[in-house]
This record gives sequence, C-alpha cells and structure tokens, in this order.
Amino acid sequence: MAMHILDLIRHKQEGRALTEEEIRFFVSGYTDGAIPDYQASALLMAIWFRGMTDEETAVLTQAMAESGDRLDLSRFGEQSVDKHSTGGVGDKTTLIAAPLAAALGGRVTKLSGRGLGHTGGTVDKLEAIPGYRTDLPPEEFLRQVERIGIAVIGQTGNLAPADKKLYALRDVTGTVDSIPLITASIMSKKLAAGAHAIVLDVKVGSGAFMKTPEQARALAQAMVTIGRRCGRQMAALLTDMNRPLGRAVGNALEVQEAAAVLRGDPQAPADLRQVSVALAAQMVALLRKIEPSEAERLVTGALQSGAGYAKMREWIAAQGGDVRVLEEPSRFPAPACHVPVTAARDGYITAMDAAAIGRAGVLLGAGRQKKDEAIDPAAGLCLCRKTGEAVKAGEPLAVLFTNRPETIAEAAERLRAAVTIGSEPPADRPLIYEVIR
Amino acid sequence: MAMHILDLIRHKQEGRALTEEEIRFFVSGYTDGAIPDYQASALLMAIWFRGMTDEETAVLTQAMAESGDRLDLSRFGEQSVDKHSTGGVGDKTTLIAAPLAAALGGRVTKLSGRGLGHTGGTVDKLEAIPGYRTDLPPEEFLRQVERIGIAVIGQTGNLAPADKKLYALRDVTGTVDSIPLITASIMSKKLAAGAHAIVLDVKVGSGAFMKTPEQARALAQAMVTIGRRCGRQMAALLTDMNRPLGRAVGNALEVQEAAAVLRGDPQAPADLRQVSVALAAQMVALLRKIEPSEAERLVTGALQSGAGYAKMREWIAAQGGDVRVLEEPSRFPAPACHVPVTAARDGYITAMDAAAIGRAGVLLGAGRQKKDEAIDPAAGLCLCRKTGEAVKAGEPLAVLFTNRPETIAEAAERLRAAVTIGSEPPADRPLIYEVIR
Repeated sequence: MAMHILDLIRHKQEGRALTEEEIRFFVSGYTDGAIPDYQASALLMAIWFRGMTDEETAVLTQAMAESGDRLDLSRFGEQSVDKHSTGGVGDKTTLIAAPLAAALGGRVTKLSGRGLGHTGGTVDKLEAIPGYRTDLPPEEFLRQVERIGIAVIGQTGNLAPADKKLYALRDVTGTVDSIPLITASIMSKKLAAGAHAIVLDVKVGSGAFMKTPEQARALAQAMVTIGRRCGRQMAALLTDMNRPLGRAVGNALEVQEAAAVLRGDPQAPADLRQVSVALAAQMVALLRKIEPSEAERLVTGALQSGAGYAKMREWIAAQGGDVRVLEEPSRFPAPACHVPVTAARDGYITAMDAAAIGRAGVLLGAGRQKKDEAIDPAAGLCLCRKTGEAVKAGEPLAVLFTNRPETIAEAAERLRAAVTIGSEPPADRPLIYEVIR
Repeated sequence: MAMHILDLIRHKQEGRALTEEEIRFFVSGYTDGAIPDYQASALLMAIWFRGMTDEETAVLTQAMAESGDRLDLSRFGEQSVDKHSTGGVGDKTTLIAAPLAAALGGRVTKLSGRGLGHTGGTVDKLEAIPGYRTDLPPEEFLRQVERIGIAVIGQTGNLAPADKKLYALRDVTGTVDSIPLITASIMSKKLAAGAHAIVLDVKVGSGAFMKTPEQARALAQAMVTIGRRCGRQMAALLTDMNRPLGRAVGNALEVQEAAAVLRGDPQAPADLRQVSVALAAQMVALLRKIEPSEAERLVTGALQSGAGYAKMREWIAAQGGDVRVLEEPSRFPAPACHVPVTAARDGYITAMDAAAIGRAGVLLGAGRQKKDEAIDPAAGLCLCRKTGEAVKAGEPLAVLFTNRPETIAEAAERLRAAVTIGSEPPADRPLIYEVIR
C-alpha cells in the first residue's frame, strides 16, 4: 500500500510514534519536492505539539544526514573531532578550543556556520582575517587536517539538504523550538560532517536559544543520545549565556580576543579562557579516552606552553590568513567611529541582556539584519564592564565600533537598556552548569 | 506595529486566544494570498491542538462570512429560514421539510451543496428532475421566494471564499476534524446566505462525520452558540445516521421517496417522515416563536392536508422542473440494470454501515469518486430491509440500480458486507437523539 503524508500527520496528531519507514518517506519526499510545504508544516506543527521518541529522533536525524553528501573521515580513524555551539554572543571558543585540541593530536575537522539573528558565526569571524579562505574544497580540507591537525571551513554545498529545507520552513512556521527537531537539525549536519567525536556547547540564558538550564539539559541529553545511537563519541557542556562570553562582540574584535587568550595575555577574559579550556578538554578526553580532569591538565599545559597559539598561527596561515593581525590588531581595517557608552549611575552590573547586546552589534554592522547582507568585520563593541563588576556614573560600559555613524545612537540606547545597574552586587552565577558525558 | 502571522502561530501554540484583530488579519491575509499555505496550515494545526474559544470561533466565522458576497434577505424580515445537514446517506429531508415550512408561511431561502464522499447533496438530487434549474441568479431566486415562499439553488459564486480556500487546505493537512473549524466553515456559509432562522441537522453515527452523540452535541452546541452571537435564531437536531435515512439512496430514487412522504403514501418510510417533520417543526417554531410541539402539530397538518406536497410541486415547477416525475417515476430515465442483493442467512439486521452503503451507491454512479465527475441520476440502491427488520436467506436486502454493469459485483459485495445479520433483533436506537434550542 502506498504511504501517504496525511496518514503520517494523523498518526502524529494522535500521539503515535512514526515508524522508520514513515520518517524516511517524509524526509525524502520533502527533500525531493513530492511533499509540499503546507503538508510538511502541518506535520512539523504536530511534532511540535506531540514531540518524538528518541528512536524517532534518531531515525529522523539519520535520514536527514543521509539526504546529501557526507564527508568521509575514515582516514583519521577515531581521532577526528568536531565541536558545535548552539549559538551565543561573543562566543569565539572554536578559535581557541580547536587549535588546543589539534595541538594535543586531535584531528579537528570543523565545518562552521555564519551568524544567525543576534548570534555570531565562526565563518564570519575567520573571514575578518585578511586572506583567510573558508571555502577549501573537500580534498584540500582533508589534506590540511592530515598535515597540521586542523581545518575550519564553511559548510560545503550539499550537506544535509533536508535540514536546509526543513530549517527554512520551520523558521517561518513557528516550529523552530522543538527539542527533537533542533536535535535532528544539528546532529544531522554533524553526522554528515563525519567526525567520530563531537563536543557540544549548549548555551543557556538571555542570549541563548535555550533560556533555562532545564531546556538546555533536555536538548543536550537528546543530542548526546542520538549521537551515541549513531556510533559517535559524545560530550556536552551547558554554559552560561546570560552575558556575552569575553568582552568582544564583532568579528575582528573577537579574533583578537581569542588570540589574546591563546597567547596567555593576562588581560584576556577569564570566562572565555575557562569555557574554551573546558571544551578542548572534552574533545581531548573523548579522543584519548581519558578523564576530563586529566585532559584539562593537558589542555592547560598546551595553553601555557604556547603550543595552542602556535597551532592557531599554523592553521590560519595554512588557510591563507595574514597571521600578523593576531599580534598587530592595527593591521585589521580600522572602524571610522569608536564611541563609548557610559553608565548613568553608580552601582554594580546585576544583569545583561546578551541577545540585546548581540542585536546592538548587528546594528553596528557586525551581523546581518537580512539574509546575504554584507558584514563589516571591523564593527562591533567591547564591553568594559560585565555582570558582577562595579561601575561609576560616567564611566564607560562599552565602546562601540562602526563604520555606520547613523546607527550609533540606537545601538548605544540598546546597549544601555541591556545593562542593569543595581546597588548590590548580584549573586554569582556558574559559567559551566553541567557536563553531560 | 505591523501584525505578523508568526505571532499568531506563537500565540496559538502557547494556548492563548487570538484577538479579533489577529483573526481578521489571518482570514483576509490568507484569502488574498498574502499569507502562504504553509503558514496557514501551521496555524490550523495549532488550532487543531489548542482549540478556540466561543469568542474566537464567532470572530473567525464572521470574518469568513464577510470574505465575499452576502445575500441580503432583509425584504423577508424575520421570516427567512435555512436548514443545514452535516451530511448523511439517503438524507432527502430538505425536499420534504423545506416545502412544509414554506406551506406554513416560512420564507425558505436555501443554498444547497453537492454530494461529498459517501454523502449525497441536495443539488444533485434536484438535478435528477428533468428541467430543474439549480442556478437561478440571486434576484430571480429572491423573487421566487417572495412569490411562493421557497427556492433551492446551488451555492452562488463568491459566497465565503475564505471558507472555500481554508477548507481545501484543511482537507490536505489533516485539520478537518476540529470543532471550531467545522463550526466556522458551516456557519460562515450560513451567515453569508443570510437567513434569519437556521435549523441544523447534525448527523451521528457510522454514516456521519460525527461518530458519537458527544461529538455531535459539541459541534451542534458550538454552531448554535455562534449563530446566536451573530443574531440568528438557531435550533439543532442530533439525528441518527447509523443507517441510511429512508430506503432510497441515489438521486432520482430519493426524489421519488421524498414525494411519497409528502403525498402521504403509506409505503413511505416512517423514519424519513419523522425526521423531516421534526426539522420542519423547528423551522416553523423559530419563525412563529412558538413551542416545537405546537409547530409539529401545524407541520403534521400541512402534511396530511396535502399543502406540503402542493408546495413541493409549485416549487419544482417554478424552477423549471417536470413535476410529472413526482407521480410517474417511469418518466425518470430508467437504469439499464436492477439487481437484487440477497441475504445469505436468516436473522435480523443488527447493524448497517451507512458510509459503506453510501460508497456502494457512489460506485453505481449516484455520486462522484473524483471531483467534477458526472453523476448518473438513475443510479443508486433501494434498501428492502433496514436495521431491526427480519430477513430470510435468499430474500433481497436491497436492489441495485445502475447503468454501469461492471460495478455491480463490487457494489453488491460492499452492500452485503455493510449489513450485519444476527440471530436476535437489536435494541432500539433513537432516531432523534437530542434537540438543541
């Protein structure tokens, strides 16, 4: 009997689990256009309401992963490793954790994304480095990893096309925030990208997609479960995104801050260092099959010895980037304006709306307000104060950098509104909520 | 601030009631094409899960009613009356109740539909009468009602186009069976058709859309509530559709059976007479603002005096139909084959699958298997036995009528399978479950 999409919709409305055959029918039918958008969106909404079992999510993820090209990393055995963040503001951990893991023998095969909404993307950050190529062809990408242990490029053409099409539909039908659908979306791309070990950084808080640790834990757990079912080594960190990570938000600014951490600069932000080291430690722990605490000692050693920084330079150079910018920020194109935003009163920063700060950065030119908009690598902002720190009226909260002077007034207002100043210092909030292994 | 469909979807996902402004935005945006199918289907699915309040349903119904043309029946004051059935098998009550109500002074302004699936449609039945015109232009329709108190035509062009478009989408996205959506669909057409009093016949059982009295009651209650909110006089009957109504299924056959009831023919089926009288009584009760029991006495009087039959003849003749067929069935085109289907054993009919019997009729040519297929007015079947009646092996259960001999074997098999014969007579089942006023 021929399968019909209306039966799948009906089954999901009734709360039944879809069969493997049904899920594969849906993914292939939607990808090749046999199932129209309006029926796919009805099914997605029914899934939004009813959820999916782990078994259904695993099948959906695999069917989506198998919908297009897959990278063959078998030449790296069990040493290939990938890292994924669910997206935050000021999140430049890939630029730090990836070379640290590579310096310790990992084979970091990383396909990165671009900024989305208020969140930044690693590809945009790397493209701020003059000369850096994010579009290596697959064979060149693989040879670089063989040679130096790391390569980071943009997503190649036909990886998980089912996800691309489904994500675009979810985005316009209110069905993005579904744990099984997010899980399948992220993990299908990770599975197609081929790495044996995968470390997830699930962001939690005002600047993240997941607003509470409970939501983030559910998503992390689902992704770890699905990855293991598909034979991958998995670990996940739940990390705080109630404030931007580090102080720099904007592409060239973030590259400089990441380099400062790897160089061991004492001015570099401790929170950024801590999360990056923890991520690199999980990567190394999976690859060497050792305890994370032991892996963390190795990672800290690679940081202090300068091995991580040397690997970053080697990697950037290998992909055509001008490594001189890492030590001489003046080699980056300078923004036309830098404008401080000052505090209106004395007190302590008690809260930051990280998403609003991300949006202020986008407005200044650091991100896209529309698809395919050009990014200004020089634009962004640098936070002079972060949650928990004291400030006096008139002291700068942040400095804005932009080539679009017309945006400064609004960006400054948004930034000021995003920072809450109170009379008492706030309670400490953990930076890493939980490790799921 | 501009409204966005994604906000409506989100509100409904969260279980919030949509505002009047939001609902009107959706109906007009979807009707004029500004909101694409895939977003409308996502919202419909969220409504399927979350439901709608009476207030939301009323606004949706009104917005849909106002999406196209509306009939202006103000010339009839409070005497205009309409009747609607949710669809059944052998349901020819309009042909009986409408002239009875008109004979008692009602202004019956009826826009009827065609058969859908296994159910028949009044327009198809009337078109079985040679010469009958179902396409009177509005002014001619209204003048006929003024003159003789009744006219029955097909739905005119642009009545509730929002419903037309939404129904087509619901049909292919699994969102038909939602009480607020069904309510808005039916009632938007009734409101646009303009009658001041509306009597609903909500069918319950194996041949109906609503399988249980509970579902039917919820739908009837919702429709009555919405109609009243919009200033109409409302009543609803819940009537049995666990067996076809009467014995005739098929267009010319049903016209003959309806005429037999109005002529007072003692062979005419009692169940059909009882439901038709009850519906006409509700129509008259609403118009004259009297008790249904008193109205039923008037209706029975109009039936016994022949006033109802005279009104039927006057109406059919006014619309160009050859009234001689009402008394001389041989004037209908004769079907090529009539084939009895016999009982395989002695016993009592304990159950009938009315939908399966409807589908057997469709197969013989009495309905459409595909949209826009031609109907054979002569095709159908006549039930010799109905639920509760005794039968002996070899006696006919039904006679099939068709011009498509190739369908007889399958139709006979379906009919036999649709009739359950047991050793004991079944418990009596009510014909009218409930009256909602």
